[in-house]
Amino acid sequence: MFLKFYIMFYLVGLGLFDAKDISLKGLECLKNVDKIYAEFFTSRLFGSSFDEIEAQIGKKIEVLVRNEVEEESKFLKEAEELDVALITGGDPLIATTHSDFLVQCSKMGIDYEVIHGSSILSSAPAISGLQGYKFGKVTTIPFPDHNFYPKSPYVAIEENLAMDLHTLVLLDIQAHKDRYMTINQGLEYLMNIKNSLNRDGAINENSLAIGIARVGSKDVVVKAGTIDELISHDFGGPLHCIVIPSKLHIVEAEYLVEIAGANKNILDEI
Amino acid sequence: MFLKFYIMFYLVGLGLFDAKDISLKGLECLKNVDKIYAEFFTSRLFGSSFDEIEAQIGKKIEVLVRNEVEEESKFLKEAEELDVALITGGDPLIATTHSDFLVQCSKMGIDYEVIHGSSILSSAPAISGLQGYKFGKVTTIPFPDHNFYPKSPYVAIEENLAMDLHTLVLLDIQAHKDRYMTINQGLEYLMNIKNSLNRDGAINENSLAIGIARVGSKDVVVKAGTIDELISHDFGGPLHCIVIPSKLHIVEAEYLVEIAGANKNILDEI
Repeated sequence: MFLKFYIMFYLVGLGLFDAKDISLKGLECLKNVDKIYAEFFTSRLFGSSFDEIEAQIGKKIEVLVRNEVEEESKFLKEAEELDVALITGGDPLIATTHSDFLVQCSKMGIDYEVIHGSSILSSAPAISGLQGYKFGKVTTIPFPDHNFYPKSPYVAIEENLAMDLHTLVLLDIQAHKDRYMTINQGLEYLMNIKNSLNRDGAINENSLAIGIARVGSKDVVVKAGTIDELISHDFGGPLHCIVIPSKLHIVEAEYLVEIAGANKNILDEI
Repeated sequence: MFLKFYIMFYLVGLGLFDAKDISLKGLECLKNVDKIYAEFFTSRLFGSSFDEIEAQIGKKIEVLVRNEVEEESKFLKEAEELDVALITGGDPLIATTHSDFLVQCSKMGIDYEVIHGSSILSSAPAISGLQGYKFGKVTTIPFPDHNFYPKSPYVAIEENLAMDLHTLVLLDIQAHKDRYMTINQGLEYLMNIKNSLNRDGAINENSLAIGIARVGSKDVVVKAGTIDELISHDFGGPLHCIVIPSKLHIVEAEYLVEIAGANKNILDEI
């Protein structure tokens, strides 16, 4: 006989792209809990419909809207009496909101468990062919707005380059408006910043960049070229991200030429 | 009728800790391929035996020794005629050896697919409660040897701190000798480097650190404290890693106090 002693709150990552990126551990957990909530505004799956995800688990999922996540946390109150899971794309806990749930659980005396998933933060650097330990800090390009066009993503790349470090550039997600920034928009953003500087920036139209689309799918694209070449290339559907390489090791350059279609002349520059 | 057109080489990540951390996609792939090889010297699963992994997949796995991976690559030659998968702990492609397989596939005209897994590189920063975009470059502490005691891990932490960035510190794995560096050994290494400097280092015995053990398991430990406190703490079995925080945001500090047992006085310093 199986005696159940603990009520738990589970934070479960769905992984990168579609319903089949969840781990066996994650799926088993979701099949056993009493209630499942989803937070899909910081990330979501593009390769599967919501119905497919529900069908795979075999139960209903309640999708939370933003203020339900950030203010009310009713799902945490329920977790005092039921096994509750909150699912999210990628790895959970990447968004600060999620780590705060654990803090709230701890204060409310609710046990919790985190079930990790594959994440863009590790998979995009991996599939770029560049060495993981040579990446500096990550930056994100936001959708600009009037009076909002921060230079910080460009500056982050410059700071990393100054230390010979590669940069993973994430692109804004506005799931509530169904807007996902493309590689093209991201590169355009960076070139606009460069043009607004009163100096030569560390990257320009001739700099090497890597556009990465749909990591985790069969349909993944990894394409290296100058910003000028990539800025008009059609990478297809979301999610997109960009890697700006620093100095390349020969093994990295060979990968970019052979796998990502970079011009062979990058091999001469090493 | 299902017609199979392509022979493929698959690089499949098993994820963080045990046999159940693989994705549904990864398991489905392994059930369908003709031959499975494993590379377990750059990473391996601690939560499951090799037999459990084989039983779950329902077929034999051939574990490669180092030179079979780095020189011979016979599994790639086989992939010209059979569906072959190479499995590894964590996310595949994290080790340079793996990205080179794809280069070789491309040169040999073999199609390939990467199936990602949960990785220490994203999951450890996540479970540390610190914000992902505030991490600088990763560093790894090696097992020292006579004439081999590099200062680079300590210097990497200092460089990150100078830019207000957190550091993920990975600890050496010598799978062939069944040696996995502990948090205690890692902190001791860092303090030895500090003591050897002819100046004040950026971290010392009173600096805050976070020890993380067994990410991805139910038995995960995340413990924050001064290096002096953590250096003698028993974190249990492998794998271990360390995070050295930079300046904390209030939300990060609250997590460290509530979830990781840090002294409440860190809240006053913000």
